[in-house]
Amino acid sequence: MTNADRWLLPDGIAEILPAQAEDIEQLRRDLLNLYHRWGYDLVIPPVLEFTDSLLTGLGQDLDLLTFKVTDQLSGRSMGIRADITPQTARMDAHSFKREGVNRLCYAGHVVHTRPKSPLATRTPIQAGVELYGEPGLSADIEVVSLLLESLQTAGVTALNIDLGHVGIYRALARATGLNESQELALFALLQQKAVSDIDQWVATEIAQPGMAQLIRQLPTLCGGIEVLSEARSLFSRFVPDALQAIDELNQLAEVIGQRYPAANLYFDISELRGYHYHTGVVFAAFAPGFGDAIANGGRYDHIGEVFGRARPATGFAVDLGALNALGDTVGQLEPAILAPEPTTAEAWAAIQSLRQQGERVVCGLSEASLVREELNCDRELVLEDGQYQVKPLSQ
Amino acid sequence: MTNADRWLLPDGIAEILPAQAEDIEQLRRDLLNLYHRWGYDLVIPPVLEFTDSLLTGLGQDLDLLTFKVTDQLSGRSMGIRADITPQTARMDAHSFKREGVNRLCYAGHVVHTRPKSPLATRTPIQAGVELYGEPGLSADIEVVSLLLESLQTAGVTALNIDLGHVGIYRALARATGLNESQELALFALLQQKAVSDIDQWVATEIAQPGMAQLIRQLPTLCGGIEVLSEARSLFSRFVPDALQAIDELNQLAEVIGQRYPAANLYFDISELRGYHYHTGVVFAAFAPGFGDAIANGGRYDHIGEVFGRARPATGFAVDLGALNALGDTVGQLEPAILAPEPTTAEAWAAIQSLRQQGERVVCGLSEASLVREELNCDRELVLEDGQYQVKPLSQ
Repeated sequence: MTNADRWLLPDGIAEILPAQAEDIEQLRRDLLNLYHRWGYDLVIPPVLEFTDSLLTGLGQDLDLLTFKVTDQLSGRSMGIRADITPQTARMDAHSFKREGVNRLCYAGHVVHTRPKSPLATRTPIQAGVELYGEPGLSADIEVVSLLLESLQTAGVTALNIDLGHVGIYRALARATGLNESQELALFALLQQKAVSDIDQWVATEIAQPGMAQLIRQLPTLCGGIEVLSEARSLFSRFVPDALQAIDELNQLAEVIGQRYPAANLYFDISELRGYHYHTGVVFAAFAPGFGDAIANGGRYDHIGEVFGRARPATGFAVDLGALNALGDTVGQLEPAILAPEPTTAEAWAAIQSLRQQGERVVCGLSEASLVREELNCDRELVLEDGQYQVKPLSQ
Repeated sequence: MTNADRWLLPDGIAEILPAQAEDIEQLRRDLLNLYHRWGYDLVIPPVLEFTDSLLTGLGQDLDLLTFKVTDQLSGRSMGIRADITPQTARMDAHSFKREGVNRLCYAGHVVHTRPKSPLATRTPIQAGVELYGEPGLSADIEVVSLLLESLQTAGVTALNIDLGHVGIYRALARATGLNESQELALFALLQQKAVSDIDQWVATEIAQPGMAQLIRQLPTLCGGIEVLSEARSLFSRFVPDALQAIDELNQLAEVIGQRYPAANLYFDISELRGYHYHTGVVFAAFAPGFGDAIANGGRYDHIGEVFGRARPATGFAVDLGALNALGDTVGQLEPAILAPEPTTAEAWAAIQSLRQQGERVVCGLSEASLVREELNCDRELVLEDGQYQVKPLSQ
C-alpha cells in the first residue's frame, strides 16, 4: 500500500468539498424548515440498529443493500441503515403513542452495499417526510404536494412526477389467480419493462386470452393523463377491482394539477417501485438528464405490523446531493474579511465585533502560514490612525 | 422473536424524538454558523471508507472502536467512521492543495463498536473544526477560543476547560530513556491515574531516584494555574526539554484568560487524551454532573504523513447531543395552526399564505384521523363570513 493509494475512496463513495457542502447544508435547512412549517416533527433515528427491527418484512432488496455488523455487546446482528423510512415506521408504531395522524421528517446519511444504479452514490444524504395514521387519499395528496414544494425549494424548475399505484397490479394478480412465485416473476419482468420476456411469460403462464392481452399491454400503459382512461376501459372488463386504484390516481392528478399547474404528471400503470413494501399510490420525481429518481415515495400501510401496530402510512424521501446538483445552487463560498493575528485586546475586540455582526472573519496567524491567494477574502481589517477599519483587500 | 422485542434498540444506541431533535438541529446550525463566521469551510466526509485510509497510524483505540465491513465492489475492508478528524486530515493532505492555513469544519454521526464510557452513546453526533498549516501556538489559541465560543453558543454557563500538553510526557520519556513498551505501559497507568500501580512500576523500572520521584508526582500535578510553575521547577532539573511545552500552556492560559475571564482553566500535566495521535497542546471541556468530556481537542501535527503530506494540525470535536443536554435548550415544539383539510382552492391558498409567512400549519385530514389532543396546535384556521381567519383553538 503506497501513500498514493491510501487516500483513494471506495467506488461510489465521495467526500463533499466546501462549495458543494455549504449548498447541501443550506438545502438541508431549507427543506427541514419547509417540513416544519407543514407540521412535520423532526426525528433523528439511529444510524444502525438490530437487523430484526431494521429489515423485518421489507424484502430482499433492502436486505441486500444493508451492511451488517455484529453487536459486540449483545452478539446480535445490526444493520447500517440503507433507508430511513422503516426506522420512522418503527418509531411511529412504538415510540409515539399517537392514535391520530403523526407527521415525521428527518435528514441523514444512509449507506448502501452497492450503488442502486451505475452512477449512484453509495452514501446518499436522504431527507424525507412520513405521514402516519391517515388511510385516505388526502394524505397522499399532502405528501405529493410537499414533494413538489421540496423541488421548488431546491430551485428545480422541471417538476416531473411519475405516478403509479401498486393496487392495480395487486388486483390484477388476484384476478388472474397468480400464485406467489408467479406474482414475483411477473413483477420482476414489469420492473425491467422486458416486453418480449413478458410476452413469452404470458404465453406459458396465462391461459385466459383477454387477461393475457391485458398483461401484455401493461408496459405500454404509460404517459399523460389519458393513460388513466385507457387503463380504466381495459381493466373494467377483467379486473374491476383495479378501478378504485385508477380512480385514486385520477383524483390525485386533479388536485395536484390545480395546486401546481407547472407540474408534469406522468403515469405508469406497471410502475411498482420500492422495496415491496408499498401498498397504494407510488410516485417519484425525475429531472431531465438525470437518470435516477431524485425522490421516491408512496403509500406503505402495513409496515408497522411487525412492530405490533399496522398504521396507514405514506411519505417520500429525496436524495439531497442529487437535488442540490439540479437546483439553482450558488456553488460559491462567502468571501471573508482578512484580519491580523489578534495579539492585542483591541484587535480581538474588533474581530469579535465584526463576527457578531454576522461577518466572516479569517485571522492571519504566522507570516509563513498566510497564503493570501488561497484565502477567500475580499476585504481586510487594518489598523489606521489608531482605529481598526475594514478596507478592500489590497492585492 | 416477538413483536415486543423487535423495536428494542441496541444498548447505547438511541433514537431522538422531536423536542430534543429540534434542539439538536438548532444547535448544529448555530455551531456551523459560528464556525463559518470564523472562516472554517464546511466539508462532508464520507460515513465509511477504506480502513487503510481511515485508521492507518492512528493506534489501536480507534481501530477497536471502528466497525469493519467488506466492500462488495473491491473486496477490501472498509470502516464506519468512529471519528471525523482523521478524515479531514486526509482531505487536507490530499483533496485540498493548500500550502497555507486550511480551516475546515463538519457535523455528522460517528459510530463506536462499544460506548467509550458506561453511559456514553455509541452513535454520537460530532461537530468540530480543524485548522491545518499553522505550527505556532496562535492556532491552538484560536481553536481553544472557538471551543469556548461553542460552549457559549450552546448556552453552557460553566466553562470548564482541562488543558494538557503531550510534549511534556514525550520529553520525560526521552529524558528517562524509556523504550516503546515502557512508554506505553506508563502512558496507560497515567491515563488511569493509577497511583499505587505507578509507584510499583517506577520502583522496578526507573533507577534514577530524582526521575523516579518526578514520575511518581505526575498524577498529582493537576489543578489551577499554579500547577504550571510547580511543574516548571520540577521538570527544569531533570527534563529541561519539557519546559517549552509548559511555557506554551502558560501562554495559552494567559490569552484565554484575557479573552474569556469566565473560563475555569484546569491543568493536568499527565493528561494524554486522544488516540495516540496528539503531539502538543490537548484540551477538553467538562460540565458539572457530566462525567465524560463534552468536547475534546488538541494538536496532532503528523497525522497527514501517511497520506503523503505531514501538515501542522490542531482542532476539536464536540458531542452535539451532550452539549445540547447541558445548554439552555427549549425542549418544546413550536405550536401550530390547525387548518381544515384543504379541499377548496380558497382553503389551500389561505394555508399556503400562512406557511409563506413562516407559520406552522397542520391540516386536519379525515375526521377519524384528527385527534386534537395529540396535535400541538394553539390556533385554528376557520372560515367565518366567507373569510379564512386564524383564531385561538377552541378546546
